[in-house]
This record gives sequence, structure tokens and C-alpha cells, in this order.
Amino acid sequence: MRGAAKWFFEFFSPDHFQGTSITSVLHTGQTKYQSVEVLTTGAFGRCLVLDGKIQSAELDEFIYHEALVHPSMLAHARPRRVFIAGGGEGATAREVLKHKTVEQVVMADIDGEVVELCRRYLQDRHGGAFEDRRLELHIEDARAVLERVSGAFDVIVLDLPDPIEAGPASLLYTEGFYALVREKLGAGGVMVTQSGPCNITNLREVFSPIHNTLKRVFPLVAPYHAVVPAFGGSWGFNLASLGRDPRAFSKATVDRALASRGGIATRFYDGESHAGMFSLPRYLRDGLAQETRVITEDSPIFLY
Amino acid sequence: MRGAAKWFFEFFSPDHFQGTSITSVLHTGQTKYQSVEVLTTGAFGRCLVLDGKIQSAELDEFIYHEALVHPSMLAHARPRRVFIAGGGEGATAREVLKHKTVEQVVMADIDGEVVELCRRYLQDRHGGAFEDRRLELHIEDARAVLERVSGAFDVIVLDLPDPIEAGPASLLYTEGFYALVREKLGAGGVMVTQSGPCNITNLREVFSPIHNTLKRVFPLVAPYHAVVPAFGGSWGFNLASLGRDPRAFSKATVDRALASRGGIATRFYDGESHAGMFSLPRYLRDGLAQETRVITEDSPIFLY
Amino acid sequence: MRGAAKWFFEFFSPDHFQGTSITSVLHTGQTKYQSVEVLTTGAFGRCLVLDGKIQSAELDEFIYHEALVHPSMLAHARPRRVFIAGGGEGATAREVLKHKTVEQVVMADIDGEVVELCRRYLQDRHGGAFEDRRLELHIEDARAVLERVSGAFDVIVLDLPDPIEAGPASLLYTEGFYALVREKLGAGGVMVTQSGPCNITNLREVFSPIHNTLKRVFPLVAPYHAVVPAFGGSWGFNLASLGRDPRAFSKATVDRALASRGGIATRFYDGESHAGMFSLPRYLRDGLAQETRVITEDSPIFLY
Amino acid sequence: MRGAAKWFFEFFSPDHFQGTSITSVLHTGQTKYQSVEVLTTGAFGRCLVLDGKIQSAELDEFIYHEALVHPSMLAHARPRRVFIAGGGEGATAREVLKHKTVEQVVMADIDGEVVELCRRYLQDRHGGAFEDRRLELHIEDARAVLERVSGAFDVIVLDLPDPIEAGPASLLYTEGFYALVREKLGAGGVMVTQSGPCNITNLREVFSPIHNTLKRVFPLVAPYHAVVPAFGGSWGFNLASLGRDPRAFSKATVDRALASRGGIATRFYDGESHAGMFSLPRYLRDGLAQETRVITEDSPIFLY
Repeated sequence: MRGAAKWFFEFFSPDHFQGTSITSVLHTGQTKYQSVEVLTTGAFGRCLVLDGKIQSAELDEFIYHEALVHPSMLAHARPRRVFIAGGGEGATAREVLKHKTVEQVVMADIDGEVVELCRRYLQDRHGGAFEDRRLELHIEDARAVLERVSGAFDVIVLDLPDPIEAGPASLLYTEGFYALVREKLGAGGVMVTQSGPCNITNLREVFSPIHNTLKRVFPLVAPYHAVVPAFGGSWGFNLASLGRDPRAFSKATVDRALASRGGIATRFYDGESHAGMFSLPRYLRDGLAQETRVITEDSPIFLY
Repeated sequence: MRGAAKWFFEFFSPDHFQGTSITSVLHTGQTKYQSVEVLTTGAFGRCLVLDGKIQSAELDEFIYHEALVHPSMLAHARPRRVFIAGGGEGATAREVLKHKTVEQVVMADIDGEVVELCRRYLQDRHGGAFEDRRLELHIEDARAVLERVSGAFDVIVLDLPDPIEAGPASLLYTEGFYALVREKLGAGGVMVTQSGPCNITNLREVFSPIHNTLKRVFPLVAPYHAVVPAFGGSWGFNLASLGRDPRAFSKATVDRALASRGGIATRFYDGESHAGMFSLPRYLRDGLAQETRVITEDSPIFLY
Repeated sequence: MRGAAKWFFEFFSPDHFQGTSITSVLHTGQTKYQSVEVLTTGAFGRCLVLDGKIQSAELDEFIYHEALVHPSMLAHARPRRVFIAGGGEGATAREVLKHKTVEQVVMADIDGEVVELCRRYLQDRHGGAFEDRRLELHIEDARAVLERVSGAFDVIVLDLPDPIEAGPASLLYTEGFYALVREKLGAGGVMVTQSGPCNITNLREVFSPIHNTLKRVFPLVAPYHAVVPAFGGSWGFNLASLGRDPRAFSKATVDRALASRGGIATRFYDGESHAGMFSLPRYLRDGLAQETRVITEDSPIFLY
Repeated sequence: MRGAAKWFFEFFSPDHFQGTSITSVLHTGQTKYQSVEVLTTGAFGRCLVLDGKIQSAELDEFIYHEALVHPSMLAHARPRRVFIAGGGEGATAREVLKHKTVEQVVMADIDGEVVELCRRYLQDRHGGAFEDRRLELHIEDARAVLERVSGAFDVIVLDLPDPIEAGPASLLYTEGFYALVREKLGAGGVMVTQSGPCNITNLREVFSPIHNTLKRVFPLVAPYHAVVPAFGGSWGFNLASLGRDPRAFSKATVDRALASRGGIATRFYDGESHAGMFSLPRYLRDGLAQETRVITEDSPIFLY
């Protein structure tokens, strides 16, 4: 640490944190909803940090965003209309828009200041998505927008900050909100939500309760994971489907689908990665099986 | 960090480290070969630390040791004689000895002081393996023992500290040593080596060169990975086989084999975990494909 | 920090801490009153740590203990009977007993486990003081002992842990306790209390309120300071006297007095150091002058 | 540390560092001579950092600059012409210019980029000094300027970064440079140099060798110290005089002189502070007495 004098620390628990050197601080401030920083770090490149937690990093954001988006998009036979809750960086929209079937993306992010900062500082993240005519961006609470817009969605992607106590997103991890999501899906519709860390040390913190909550609402919930170093290891997702089950897809099926959707270029996701994501280690399956908590507005669950 | 005053830091690079609170320090010292500590940490429980790097942690050692041992043991149709290089904690022997086919395990660890400390402080790690009559323990350089003992081995497990510059194990990650390993394997023999971290941030540090070096010696090299939080995320392994390819095993095959080998109890490994371990993310396959370095005694490669 | 993996952190505020490498942990535990650790650190040698705060360090404890004891002992013309509140390490007694005028030292420390640990691990601290027949040690609340013992004291030394919220000593920094101390002093009696940090950054935290509280009880209160690196910089003391004012002593007077008291050997304290300790920087005098708070049991003040 | 995610660490040795939270980063860059940062910190306010070391902090820079300047200015009976080596922040000039006797200040700082950053970001530091017509600023090596300018100086102030191995200033802490300084002083001339840390833990690192080196050149060298928290505790200075000895000044003399020089307003320095600065603790005097090293260009000494 002699050479590096400036450090960014992210705590996963009172007993565990990750530190990376800071090369430069491009922005630091407080919006109406959360603290926001844009930092360049020695380990992960340029990072967006909300309420002290890295939301995405230059070096590994492709893993997170490809893992979040493509399984649900492929689980739908022909996704034309997609809703994104959160996703202010534009990278989730970027991945969704790669699917040539897509005709409209409705995206609702509550924090316009964060969206502006991302447009300015994180060009690698949105990659022009904000200029795509198919994108309809609302700076507004995702729930309000979802309630208001008419017509069904084929895929709904929840790309929200973690449910932390003082944060803006915890209400969007509840049974009530998931019921609304289900209502807004069309036939064969698919939803996915980022679901927090799922290492052996913290899989029961929010990952397994989110999974269990979704199971109360959806007939089919497929948990999966991918390793995102800037987030501190293994990261969890839950995909819920009214139609197809992506766990049944062979590697070849996935690869063919990516090709047929417009020759989607990826660095993380393909048929083999798909198989790896949905083949969970035994302790993770055991942790999910033992979970009994359901997240509601009255009994919320928060990440440290 | 207010509450916790004592911290253990492990650096993965000059720009990146992981910190965990220290609850107690059971031992701290210097052997003839390396520094050694036994710490209880807030995040990972009791840990063995060699040369500043966590070798195994109470909370997740089962992931590492099950991942290291069972794929190679199942890749051999009937492993009777097994060689372990390193493995001083006894946990690798513990997993090997679960296979009821095993008649003899020859284990060579150079550092008797470390072995003594593990016997004393890490009962959960060896679980009585040192008392198993099938185990023949040599406190001696693994290469010397392997050269000397006669007869072929069915499986050879390299459970060595990472190849760091001043460490005792770097010569055991070379083409020359792997050639000796091959020579000592019987027909259909299988070897496996722990291969360092394989996150997007550090997969090319030692994981891909080890893989590439093994490919010069063995006809079939299967890379795989598992998430071990105490090691900082995704951890790599390389299995090389003169016989069967474990990547061809279905989930059911693995589960049946575990049952038939004596009802092996695991918390991490089973058929689905096996599928997850061998389904590498695309960036990892790309990183391996691009690797051209070969590790030899004259051109060693070290982990930070 | 590459070399050092174990660190001890002491926070002075949520925004400021000091870190030193840990060489070994000799003891870590919890007594009835406080957490206690004996650590060897790279920066300060062997340290006693109570409730996460270094109480004394091998390298600079002589500064703290000489600064605490000798000014008050010299401010009394002939100290025969001395009371020590706290002082479990034995180092305060060690310094007091250097004065050949001393016939009896009554010492009361509430935490017998800490005293035992100090006797065992910190021989350099007590230096045989516990074996001196003039020392009468009570393992008991200092207030209770002081109330009970009959007869007046010439000097009373308060060598207590800082007043922190959950700590055992905060009641001994109040106007009420100081009134008892005054009552127990004989004619020309002198008391002194360690008074927390007094850097420009934190002099108003407890140093100035302690000073102001003492002024309500004693006719003469002389604040002073010394630099103790293990405590994070400048450390404050307040001496209150019913007789002589040590600020009037010339350097020569102090040196002569040390010689006449039995040739007291010191490494920090002498006439010139005395002059330095009592010549406060202007910001410190200004801070004291502006202080209006008085510490009582009903309105306590705590150090971070 | 939960709340604060960004930290600045300054190491005093491999085993000891100070950390303060970072509120914002105003500038971070690399000049021709050194790395430079302007940070706002939670503990010390806005800081200038060169080569990873805090050069001055909003909260306590007044201590350092008043301590550096006023003793030497008062040691000269009527300082009209003053030379400042370094001092890019403008705060040393600010203090010098408070003396109404001063007619000309020649200042030489090698790093024009640092001076520009200070003018822009550290208005509290220069306080308009750069606009004072008496100041003649050279962006150039201090030695070159001092050699070139004709006429004698009454006071020469060396306000240089610490002598670190790769830094721009280490040649200005040598016997050779001090000989030049002496040559350029007029009758009764006085020089002073900041001299690094002088805690019990590090007083022999550069403080005592600088003192010993000056003694080879000047007839009278007066060491002194002041506590500057942002620098990690006690900070050393050495004043060398061809005329008066400031240690002989009484408190009243100092206070009268400050008044007569134009009613100089201070927050740290006055007669009593002066007495405190020049009354060194015994271990410091012992450390100086034991020092035998002399710093020359051929045998330099560096701070960690």
C-alpha cells in the first residue's frame, strides 16, 4: 500500500471488506436519493458507486450485464417489448437492444442525476443505448411507471441497487412488487432480478429470501450466478418465467439463439457459460431449499 | 471497523486486497520454509496462513478440498493408490480416503512444522485422516519422494501453496515436474493441481500458464473452477488425464459414482456442481486459448 | 502493507485512525469490565489494549508514565502517602515508588484480570512495583476504596482508561468524584489525572471539559501535555493543587528536586521537559479558555 | 469505516500509518518533479499532498507555518530581506510578510505546477501573499536562485518537502547547501529549516542528522518542535543563527516583539508557545546528542 495512498473500501459485513486503490475521483456527490461517486480504481477501472457500493466496474461490468440480460431474453421466444427497472448506467439497455427482435424498451430509473452522470462519464457502459430510438426513458419511480404504462411486456429486467436500509430500491424486492411485475408480463413472459451476493458466506443475506419470495408469485423460478470480482465474488440472479425454463436449454441451443437474434457479440455469455450459471454448487441449492423468509413491505430484508 | 481493531489483509495485487477481522491468533511463527499463522477471522473462521496467504478457512475449505479431489478420483475408474504432494492440513487426504477403493495414500509435505500445527489446531481440516492406516506420510520434498517410490499411482493430487517467488513450491508448477508426475501415473491415471485464482482480473497470472504447461505433457487437460471466498473469488484447477475425460460425465453419472464409492458425503460437490465447475465462462476459455507461456525451471512464473 | 498482513487499527474519530502492524498476539479476551489484549506491534512494541484503545506501549510508555507522575510528586514538598486510581500495569506505581519520601501507596484497580495479565506479560511496565512492600493493592472500584480508607493522601494519581461510553472509568471523570478526591487530600495535597488527547483536532473532546470540571473543585488547576505516539500525538494531563504551583518551578528547581528525591532516573522528564510540558501552545490555551462544559454523572462526556 | 468509503493513507514506516477519510479529490496529477494531489479529508480538511505525503492541511497548517517562520524572524533584530526555498503554498510567505520590517521576499520553488494549484485551490494557505508587491517569485531550483542573487539576506527559510529518495528536495538538506545558505546570510543572519518528524519513534530518521549537519556549518543551532497532527505528531525544526539565540528570549520578550513588528496575529505562536517549542523532551535532546551522521551529497539520508 506504500505506492497507493488513496483507497476505496467496500464492506460486505462488519468483518469483511474489499479494498482497491483509487486512481482518480471523477465525481462525488449526493443526489435526492443516494450518494454517488465515479471513481477510477487500480483493480477494476472506472466504477460507479452508489451509497458506498460499486454498481458496475469497467473491468467486469460485461459479466454482470450479460448475465443479467441474456438468459431472460432467450427464455422468451420473441421478446419485442421489454421493461427495465433501474439500469441507469444504460448497460442493461445496451444488452437488451442487441436482440434484434426488440421493438421497444421502457426504462424507469428514479435518479436522473445518476443517469446524467453515467451518460457523461460511463460511455463504455451505455455504448450509445440512450440514443437508440427504441428506448423510452422515464426518470421516475419504476413502480409508478410500471403501474401506469399499458400493454404487456415480454421481458422485465430488474437492475436495481441492492436492498439496503436507507436506499431507494428496497421496496422493489418485495412480494407486492413481484405480483405487479407478473401482472404486467404477457403470455410466456419472463422476468429477472439481480439478487445480491451468493457466496457461501452471504448467500442467505438477500439471495435466498429473494428467491423464496419470487416462488410465491411465479410458477417457475430459476436461480443462477456469475462471478463478478468488483462485487466481491459470486453474484446471484433469479429468473422467473411464465413460459419456458432456460435450464432446459442445451449449450448448442443457446449458441444458436444468440446467433439468430442478430449475431449478438458477448465476452461472458454463451452456451457453455449458460450451463455454468445455472449449475449451482450444492451449498447454494441447500441454502435455497432451507429458506423460509418472504420479503414484504412489512417485513423487509436488507443487505449489510 | 470501529468494533474490530485487528485485521488480516491479503493482497491480490498492489491495487487490491481483502481484509477480514481477526478474532484471535493461535500461532504465528516461521518454519524453515515459510511463515505460518493460525488465525481465527470474523469472516472465515479459523484459517491457516502460509507466507501471508490464506491456505484454507474453516468456512469454505470444504469447497476447495472437495473441488480439488473428487473430479480426479471419479475420473479414474478404480483409484487404489494415490499420491498427494503438499496437503499438510490433512483435508485433501480426508477427501481422498472417503473413496472406499483407496488402499494406499502416499503424501509428501516438506514442512513438518506446518503439519504438526495443523494436527494440533485444525482438527476440522484433517478429521482423523492422519490416523488412517492407509496414509503414509513423508515429511520431505514431494519431488524427491515421488522420484523414489516405486510403483504407479492411479491419481496424483498436487495440493501445493501458490507459486510465489520466495515460496517452497514454485518448482512443482513446472513442465519438468509435470513430466515426472506423468511418468508415475499408471494406465488411465489422472492428476490434478490447484492452479491459483481465475477471476477476470487475474486468470492469466498463473491459471492459464499452468494450464498451458500441462498441455505440453498430457494428452487431455481439463480446466475447472469453484468459488472460494477466503481465496478472493473464483479459484482454478487443472485436471490432466491419461484415461477418461470428466467433462463427459453427466450429472447422474457423477451422483451415482459418489454413491457407489461408499456413499461419499459432500457439501459442495455432486453432479450439478461438477457440471458448473467444468462449464467455464467464455472469458476464461478465451484467456486459456490465448495463453502461450510454458512454465519451466528456467522461466518460472509467480503469483503476486 | 505487503509484508505485514496483520494490523491493529485505533480510531480517533470516524474519519481518522492509526494503524500499526501486529507481530504477535499474546492475549485476547474479555474481562468482567472490558475487552483486553496484549499485542506486539511493529511500530510500538508490546502494547496493552483495553476496549480497543492502546493503554501503554513498550516504546513510549515511559513518556506517559513519567509525565503523569513526576510533576504532581514534585509539586508536593514531601509526598509520603499516595493513592493511585487505576494504573493496573504497575508503571504508575513504579514511577511513584522512585520517590524515596514515599512510605505507602494505596492503589485500586477494578479489573483483577487486567492486573494479572500485566504482571505476566508486561514486566517492563511494572518493573517489580507489585513486589514493593510499600504498595497496597486493592482489586476494587477506586471510588469505593478512596471513600473507605481513612487518613489523608499527599498525592492522588488518576491513571484511568479514557471515559468511553461503555467503559468502566467514565464516572471517575466527574465533578462528584473530583470533590471526593479533594476531600481525601491533606494540606498542600496534589492530584493529577490523565486527560485524553489534546491535539488541535481533538482537544475539546475530553481534555478541556476535564480541565473545566476540575476548576470547579480546586483552587489551582495546571493543564499540561506530552507527545505519546502510541496514543496518536499530544496527550493531556491536568494537575490540581491545594498547595504549590508546579508552573512556577524553574528548570534547575526540577532537576535538583529529582536528584534530592533519590536520584530518580528518567528518560523523558527533567527540568527542561517540565518547562515544555507546561508551556502550552496558544490554540490549547484558547481552547481551554473557551470551554464551559462541566462533567457530572448526569451530563457525562465521552471520548470517541 | 462503514460510512467512509474513500481513505487516504500515509505511511510513516512499513509498520505504521495514519488514515483519514477522503471527502473529495480536487486534483490528482503528476508534475515534472513529483506527484501532487489536492484532497479534502474528514480529519484535516483540505490538504496538499506531494509524493504521497501531506504537505499542509487546512486544520493545522497554521501550527506548522507559524512555527517555521516566527522564531527565525524574531531572532533577527530587523529582518528586511528574506529568502524562502520551496514554500509553494504561499503560507510561509504569508507569515513572513506579516513582519512589517520586511522589504523584500525572494522565493524560489522549483515546481510551477504546484504553485499554480495552490493559488487555485488553497486560498486559505497563501491569503493573498502572491499579490504582495514585496514578493519576488522564481519558479526555479532554490539553489540556483540563491547562488545567483546578489546581496545578503537577513533570514533564509527552507520550507521544502521531506528528503525522500525520489523527491526533488533531498539535495537541499546537505552540508554543501547549508554552507551556501550561510554564505548568503548577512551579519546576524538567521536560517531555519523544517526538519521532519521528531517523535520518539522517528526522531533519528532525519531530524537528528539535519541538526548534526547544521552544527558543522553554523556556530549556533537551536532545535525545536511543534505538534502537527496531519504530519503524524511532533514535527522538528532547526534554526541556525549568526547572531542572537532565540532560546534566550523570555515569554514577554516574544510577545512584545510580535506586537512591535506590526501586531502580528497568530493562533499558535506567542511567548508561551515559543517556550514550549524550544524546551525539548529529554529523549529528544539525548537523541540529538548521540547523533554523529552528517548529510552530504555523497551520503544522503532519506525519510521513509
